[in-house]
Amino acid sequence: MTRPPPNPELLSLNTATVREKWSLREAVEGCARHGIHAISPWRDKVAQMGAKEAAKAIRDHGLTVSGLYGAGMFPGSDRKARQAAIDDTRRAIDEAATLEARCLALVAGGLPGGSKDLAGTREMVRDGIGEVLDQARAAGVPLAIEPLHPMYCAGRGCVDTLAQALDLCEELDRSGTGLGVAVDAYHVWWDPLLQAQIERAGDRRLLAFQICDWLATTRDMLADRGMMGDGVIDLPLVRSWLEEAGYRGFHEVEILSAGNWWRRDPEEVLATCRVRHQTAC
Amino acid sequence: MTRPPPNPELLSLNTATVREKWSLREAVEGCARHGIHAISPWRDKVAQMGAKEAAKAIRDHGLTVSGLYGAGMFPGSDRKARQAAIDDTRRAIDEAATLEARCLALVAGGLPGGSKDLAGTREMVRDGIGEVLDQARAAGVPLAIEPLHPMYCAGRGCVDTLAQALDLCEELDRSGTGLGVAVDAYHVWWDPLLQAQIERAGDRRLLAFQICDWLATTRDMLADRGMMGDGVIDLPLVRSWLEEAGYRGFHEVEILSAGNWWRRDPEEVLATCRVRHQTAC
Repeated sequence: MTRPPPNPELLSLNTATVREKWSLREAVEGCARHGIHAISPWRDKVAQMGAKEAAKAIRDHGLTVSGLYGAGMFPGSDRKARQAAIDDTRRAIDEAATLEARCLALVAGGLPGGSKDLAGTREMVRDGIGEVLDQARAAGVPLAIEPLHPMYCAGRGCVDTLAQALDLCEELDRSGTGLGVAVDAYHVWWDPLLQAQIERAGDRRLLAFQICDWLATTRDMLADRGMMGDGVIDLPLVRSWLEEAGYRGFHEVEILSAGNWWRRDPEEVLATCRVRHQTAC
Repeated sequence: MTRPPPNPELLSLNTATVREKWSLREAVEGCARHGIHAISPWRDKVAQMGAKEAAKAIRDHGLTVSGLYGAGMFPGSDRKARQAAIDDTRRAIDEAATLEARCLALVAGGLPGGSKDLAGTREMVRDGIGEVLDQARAAGVPLAIEPLHPMYCAGRGCVDTLAQALDLCEELDRSGTGLGVAVDAYHVWWDPLLQAQIERAGDRRLLAFQICDWLATTRDMLADRGMMGDGVIDLPLVRSWLEEAGYRGFHEVEILSAGNWWRRDPEEVLATCRVRHQTAC
């Protein structure tokens, strides 16, 4: 089924896509040159120039910050490690507020070293989000729980499905003010419940939408992601589900690709993103 | 929480664990030497000696065939390819009957080359199982749908969760005669619904239980699986859920490990399996 292409104004560049070649400032300038109106930085890139300076550069170029990434890894081996993760997420909320980010994404974190206690680890995530939610509400920064692909469950993200993320939202934020989800097609495309859970989330909980593609030849578990159209995900279909649920936000291109896109000239990468957003999303 | 070790009589060797060094005959003899009372062969190993000869060797050594693996990849690009997959599964049912296997595992298969139609591919799986189910019932061979880890969705298995497999069971086999699931801890350990779905399956649908471990350092998506105890899966917990649901069948060790266990002397591998079954499962 052929679907109409998305609104090109909704394209957002996640800085991970060009992280090997460009600083945040270069990415901001690149977006402006290529007619990309939004950016979604990882925190390490923000840290290099400082949040205030980053906010100014982004504002000066007329960009929206669709989301801030790189926070929320709450599990820890002991109380001290868990408190440090909470404190780090509190700083991330401040950064997101400074950047006027539409949301702060929370990647839940994996099992603490040596642990096999998956249920207990998931409780640490729930408790961690609960700790910071009021601050996020006060700062006007919605928190977006990002379910990661189950292949990251051990090391990076023990929230693995959209259903699980939405269960957390309902447990911690029944009123629906301040907590939602980030839907990354790469992480959730395989899920038999995806359409139903996107519908369940609805506009209120759908805070971000990330795109790239799953390559049929995927070899590396972290950084072998594909440009939209080069893989097996029916991105127009997934987008249509989000739109039917009321989502009107940005489409953030996040491509971790050590062997291909990270090596290319970012000018080519951004030009390709713009084209593929129209032809494959 | 410390749980009592499992009954050592329930250990079964999946031939994939020693596939690089041993033929089926060698594996059968090895099991007998090591006091392992059951075996679960992949079909390629059976094909090398023929099903009748394999059945005789297995019987002569007093082993039970807990399951037969390597069938059920139903999706295909055209009608001819799909029919070939059904015909192949029909042959596998005959082989399983000859071997008196407790079940024939069905790995659903992934997207046909170039396809992005995941829903349509899943329909091919449903229809394929529906085509062969009566033959399996007549042959007395229960079919065990094996959900694979979502990282195999594109290329190997578009049935990715236990819930999805059980939905298929209920759609195709409401009476519960002939269709169930194979639970491989490696594929499903991350699933937030695992305990609930094992309980839902119950004794009638729980046809096989496979064990190995998910290494925290996993790099290769196919053949970097761990010996029980070397990874992050709480195998005693998962086993307890199966037992609470009424499962009394075998525990099949299936370790795909190109860099480690496949290189070792199978005598050491089997000895280690026996020990770890008692200490880490």
